[in-house]
Amino acid sequence: MATAPSVSYSITVRLEVPASGTAVSQLTTAVESSGGSVTGLDVTASGHEKLRIDVTIAASSTEHASEIVEKLRGIEGVVLGKVSDRTFLMHLGGKIEMASKHPIRNRDDLSMVYTPGVARVCMAIAENPDDARRLTIKRNSVAVVTDGSAVLGLGNIGPKAALPVMEGKAALFKTFAGIDAWPICLDTQDTDAIVEIVKAIAPGFAGINLEDISAPRCFEIEARLREALDIPVFHDDQHGTAIVVLAALTNALRVVGKRIEDVRVVMSGAGAAGTAILKLLMAAGVDHAVVADIHGVVHGDREDLVDADPSSALRWIADNTNPEKITGTLKQAVRGADVFIGVSAPDVLGGEDVAAMAEGAIVFALANPDPEVDPALARQSAAVVATGRSDFPNQINNVLVFPGVFRGLLDAQSRTVNTDMMLAAARALADVVHVDQLNANYIVPSVFNPDVAGAVASAVRGAARHPAAL
Amino acid sequence: MATAPSVSYSITVRLEVPASGTAVSQLTTAVESSGGSVTGLDVTASGHEKLRIDVTIAASSTEHASEIVEKLRGIEGVVLGKVSDRTFLMHLGGKIEMASKHPIRNRDDLSMVYTPGVARVCMAIAENPDDARRLTIKRNSVAVVTDGSAVLGLGNIGPKAALPVMEGKAALFKTFAGIDAWPICLDTQDTDAIVEIVKAIAPGFAGINLEDISAPRCFEIEARLREALDIPVFHDDQHGTAIVVLAALTNALRVVGKRIEDVRVVMSGAGAAGTAILKLLMAAGVDHAVVADIHGVVHGDREDLVDADPSSALRWIADNTNPEKITGTLKQAVRGADVFIGVSAPDVLGGEDVAAMAEGAIVFALANPDPEVDPALARQSAAVVATGRSDFPNQINNVLVFPGVFRGLLDAQSRTVNTDMMLAAARALADVVHVDQLNANYIVPSVFNPDVAGAVASAVRGAARHPAAL
Repeated sequence: MATAPSVSYSITVRLEVPASGTAVSQLTTAVESSGGSVTGLDVTASGHEKLRIDVTIAASSTEHASEIVEKLRGIEGVVLGKVSDRTFLMHLGGKIEMASKHPIRNRDDLSMVYTPGVARVCMAIAENPDDARRLTIKRNSVAVVTDGSAVLGLGNIGPKAALPVMEGKAALFKTFAGIDAWPICLDTQDTDAIVEIVKAIAPGFAGINLEDISAPRCFEIEARLREALDIPVFHDDQHGTAIVVLAALTNALRVVGKRIEDVRVVMSGAGAAGTAILKLLMAAGVDHAVVADIHGVVHGDREDLVDADPSSALRWIADNTNPEKITGTLKQAVRGADVFIGVSAPDVLGGEDVAAMAEGAIVFALANPDPEVDPALARQSAAVVATGRSDFPNQINNVLVFPGVFRGLLDAQSRTVNTDMMLAAARALADVVHVDQLNANYIVPSVFNPDVAGAVASAVRGAARHPAAL
Repeated sequence: MATAPSVSYSITVRLEVPASGTAVSQLTTAVESSGGSVTGLDVTASGHEKLRIDVTIAASSTEHASEIVEKLRGIEGVVLGKVSDRTFLMHLGGKIEMASKHPIRNRDDLSMVYTPGVARVCMAIAENPDDARRLTIKRNSVAVVTDGSAVLGLGNIGPKAALPVMEGKAALFKTFAGIDAWPICLDTQDTDAIVEIVKAIAPGFAGINLEDISAPRCFEIEARLREALDIPVFHDDQHGTAIVVLAALTNALRVVGKRIEDVRVVMSGAGAAGTAILKLLMAAGVDHAVVADIHGVVHGDREDLVDADPSSALRWIADNTNPEKITGTLKQAVRGADVFIGVSAPDVLGGEDVAAMAEGAIVFALANPDPEVDPALARQSAAVVATGRSDFPNQINNVLVFPGVFRGLLDAQSRTVNTDMMLAAARALADVVHVDQLNANYIVPSVFNPDVAGAVASAVRGAARHPAAL
């Protein structure tokens, strides 16, 4: 699948060109004929003989950017200078910082912010620990915790290499929900150690966002932390994804006019995200679900499952899905299905598989960057198609969810996060798309829609403060 | 010792008073006759009959503030409204926050700060982990780690109650040295656990500032972390204090014209700060030191020391100080001494003890808020007196040290902090006071002296980059 030029592969090239002649137009022609696009051109110095020009170019990959640079080098009279990568420039020195809310300009400021004044505030909290939520950063702070074991689609790259993602996450928390998040990148991948560490650092935070921790350890880590802590623990890769998928499915079903109780859902992928999506969809009313993983459709008699740990996620799936006990491959299972949800691997389905689905089929192909089925092919027969990519309609993006969810949890001073809150979040997110806006290419709002975080936060806050009657 | 009214006990009282008559002047008279001072008076609403006035008052303690409020309540015609405590107001919601360095306004921004662009930065660090110092917040981040076991003079108040101090510390790091520090308040006081936790969170930080961890655990925790980590670990209560004491002593000796090698130093207090001060002074040339603790002068034959753990700090003191093996009380030891340094408890010495010291005596009475000897009494016979208090000359304050020390360590990308760096920091801090400024009441610069942090940082950076030849 060809990719359009993107700012995330954007470079700035410094060039010297002859002041006279056609060198400048040759530059832009060279970029465009190579499939790049010129997004900026500044003459930064000019003389009788020479111009110094900074050209900013969007390419579609690192290799593509290098090809374009080589093409520029080949133009007669052009001298190539420094090539800067805009994404790397933006990361220099990190993307977030700490700021003091109060200026400390003189002894009076110092004596209130620090000793001796601070001692009275400490004693107030020692006497009433709940005051920490009133008199400290705890009120609005979230730890973004990772062990670097499953970062984006990059795998087990470790805690230092995970840091740019966690910083980005923290920046999104602040931008979309005013939350002060700080990355905690752990130099251990031991489940017990991670649980102990997160328990120990909890006093300074009002919530824990687990991030990019590989399955199945992520299940146990989250479960044990939820049990131990009096602040909410949320593994975004699981529950953030599940909430946005449920919101998108809610609206997709509105588009095709089907009820969630009636549809047959086939999922590809039984990892952390897949399991969480499945459980939330079932809580929302899905009755007919079938899950396939790399070994085919999950059912109780499958060889690798007969002796599986009864507490394993896969065993749970076998026991709670696939009531007709169908067997075989994903491609077989998907025939006649109403909904396909992929959180697995590229190109596990072809256009013909989508064509074999039921009338009004819904396809969420969320593998990133390459979806389970080419969305353009899927769209030929499916009624609604969504992906994880920003260059197709209906991007299923966790950024729609986690800022609002945590804003709601923090505002409610919630000690937990539960399925009712997640269902409320999904409903609120779906409802941000008004009936008169809703169509097959617009089932989720833009991440820059200013109503999103507030609507999600309000729903979560409400569910936290007024738990549904049993 | 009476304390002057201070902004750290500052309140704002809302009052309604009759518009005519002398109520306003009665207010200020009442405050002043109670020993408070009016630092602000705002008429916030005015009518024909009534004025609403906000009076801001500095008191000398919480009780004093309450007394003043009662006095105001007694004035005829005055209706008392809300009483606000300025220090508590400043702490509402915490004193620090996280900020994104880049605006995230559109999809282009998002695709560079977060996915997909961030993936290339992650991979660059995975391939070369040292790039984390270039491309992430690691370059400029310090964890301020406490277990809440020895907070200020308040004792073991726990991690939540310690948070206001750690936030204040973080704010000072930023204000004085541009460092991004984040508080990590641990819900454990187990030495092994603290060591494991700090090791695990280290990837995201370029330095660890241990804070307010009680002795003797702080020694072992610091030693093990220094051994394990490739970033500097600095227990400010020990080394920050030691550096500022050495700087102050250097200048005090200049004032009295004595050499550090020649003076007899008597210390009161053998805790974390005392031990660190002693070791740094000895590294700087002190040959004659005697330490007293609550049981009297430390010497090898003292009953409690005969069987002491050979690795204990007290045993180290017994083996390395007091060459004449003197015994007895602090008061006995201090006779004829050139220097007294107290990091212990209030009022362990009287004016007559200071009078019995050598000619040109130097007295650092650092117990807070009440010093080892009344500084006014000490000043009657000592040549130089310093305290930890801001309401006397020569305040020995760690704020003079830790921002610059970490700035230097971070700039040098230092993997350790050692005695040479600390000696360099103390020398640089002492030298900020020019010869023509130096006198008995000005041996350390103000914490707001803009040269301090830069001078200390530069010295530490130099010592880190060019270790002294052996």
